[in-house]
Amino acid sequence: MEMTGRIAFVSRLSIRDEELWLQALAGALPEENILPVRKIASGDLCGVQIAVVANPDPADIARLTNLKWIHSVWAGVERLVAEPGLAALPIVRLVDPELARTMAEAVLAWTYYLSRDMPAYARLQRQHRWQQLPYRHPAELTVGLLGLGTLGTAAALRLRSAGFNVSGWSRTAKNTDRIERFSGAAGLALLLARADVLVCLLPLTPETHGLLNRERLALMPTGASLIHFARSPIVVVDDLLAALNSGRLSHAVLDVFDVEPLPQHSELWEHPKITVLPHISAPTNKETAAAIVAKNIRDYRSSGVLPRTVAMNHGY
Amino acid sequence: MEMTGRIAFVSRLSIRDEELWLQALAGALPEENILPVRKIASGDLCGVQIAVVANPDPADIARLTNLKWIHSVWAGVERLVAEPGLAALPIVRLVDPELARTMAEAVLAWTYYLSRDMPAYARLQRQHRWQQLPYRHPAELTVGLLGLGTLGTAAALRLRSAGFNVSGWSRTAKNTDRIERFSGAAGLALLLARADVLVCLLPLTPETHGLLNRERLALMPTGASLIHFARSPIVVVDDLLAALNSGRLSHAVLDVFDVEPLPQHSELWEHPKITVLPHISAPTNKETAAAIVAKNIRDYRSSGVLPRTVAMNHGY
Repeated sequence: MEMTGRIAFVSRLSIRDEELWLQALAGALPEENILPVRKIASGDLCGVQIAVVANPDPADIARLTNLKWIHSVWAGVERLVAEPGLAALPIVRLVDPELARTMAEAVLAWTYYLSRDMPAYARLQRQHRWQQLPYRHPAELTVGLLGLGTLGTAAALRLRSAGFNVSGWSRTAKNTDRIERFSGAAGLALLLARADVLVCLLPLTPETHGLLNRERLALMPTGASLIHFARSPIVVVDDLLAALNSGRLSHAVLDVFDVEPLPQHSELWEHPKITVLPHISAPTNKETAAAIVAKNIRDYRSSGVLPRTVAMNHGY
Repeated sequence: MEMTGRIAFVSRLSIRDEELWLQALAGALPEENILPVRKIASGDLCGVQIAVVANPDPADIARLTNLKWIHSVWAGVERLVAEPGLAALPIVRLVDPELARTMAEAVLAWTYYLSRDMPAYARLQRQHRWQQLPYRHPAELTVGLLGLGTLGTAAALRLRSAGFNVSGWSRTAKNTDRIERFSGAAGLALLLARADVLVCLLPLTPETHGLLNRERLALMPTGASLIHFARSPIVVVDDLLAALNSGRLSHAVLDVFDVEPLPQHSELWEHPKITVLPHISAPTNKETAAAIVAKNIRDYRSSGVLPRTVAMNHGY
């Protein structure tokens, strides 16, 4: 049975995952009628002004002929931005403090994973070898953070509280207490040269695509390591493998891949210096995300003003 | 050449390690003459009033016939306390805030190791399996801390700051803000029943020897895990193995063993649910430890009053 919906949910998620999102959104926005686009009658599609999206098929969005704006339930919107058919529509991305907390926790947890030599001790255990590696005080280590948005700033403060030196890099110069900041190409080179642990939280844009390539990885200190929690194409994987294999870099924690799930036959699974994570660093919390989407939609209903939208020229 | 020493350093450490300790102590106490006991002339041994010790041979201490007190450079003094020949001597153990900081960091780091499912993701990686495990918010987890001394309290506060629920257990009831506290046998049962992660930081005493046995491990929630950073005999290893093999407990991080280094042929190395660490959770920092020993000795020299000593009836 087709029904009238004022808001369309457009996704290519599994039925189960879509249901969970619809439940969370209905709970947060009981006054609205939110329906998956495939359940909205053809004649009613023109009445939909807002689409809430999670990896949508652009063809589905194209059917919403009077759409005013799109709200992504995710923070990363590079695919939406790259879609030619959507370029004219305002896109709102998720900015969730709970997501920032989760990501900051993940950055701290996997920084400890590296600073406390967990991969090395796992290797020694496999070899039945009892060997104490020198303890490194957090004050002896510098974590280089690429990206100082909501997520990056939360991560930086968390690392500082834990006693690590933190240097941050962002496209534009930003004021952040207690964190050494760099921007621009020259600033990136300076940051890379001091990063014992490099954490990538950048948005994927034409400028960040392939940013961490052979030349830039070569600027890092010998024995440094990488935590990649952003989007796969920011790192040139072949160049990363070369840096790991040559011994310049000691380890990489990768949570994002060109193809996800990472194919069974990928060589990354077996690499002794790579920790493969299945995109779990900061899972979206459907409840907190739905509450933020609800607030943005309510504000729009009452004031007619859009929430802060993605700057299409920057891509985030 | 034998020399006169007013303070004897008594240890069974390697020559290299002993030298590093003597350097640190000499730097912190330049006004004292601190010599390894084997370098003190026989006729001068009776002039030694203070021994600074690190795993000493009791026979060496027995040669110091006018010894007034012993300062251990370590926090754990169970072997000194158990030595019949030393029972009459006041023993001072190391209470180092830097050690507490390092231990609190280790507790947080390996709590994240478990709460963020790092052992499970390592297993999935070996199987080339892409599987996202449910994220657990720290507020959904309770860490049970056994021991609320200097180390335990520092660890508890660190875990609380990270958002975990913390329940602590100590021999005597203690007042600690923000931490649910238990004491006594009944309190231990209550704590075990709610501990998703159990962290052992207890001193080894006749009361704690074999404390975590089959009956007590059986009180823990199914799927709970253990972090053992204290002294091996507090946990009955065969009972722990049974609890892991039956699936009641999901994982154990062990930093301490009956025999160290852990023998090559030990079955613990190969156990899929055990992380073996080579006694590295909180390495003693020789500089900060020497500074504390120096302060205690200076206070004694100027006032004649001993620092707080180990209560022999409690063993710590």
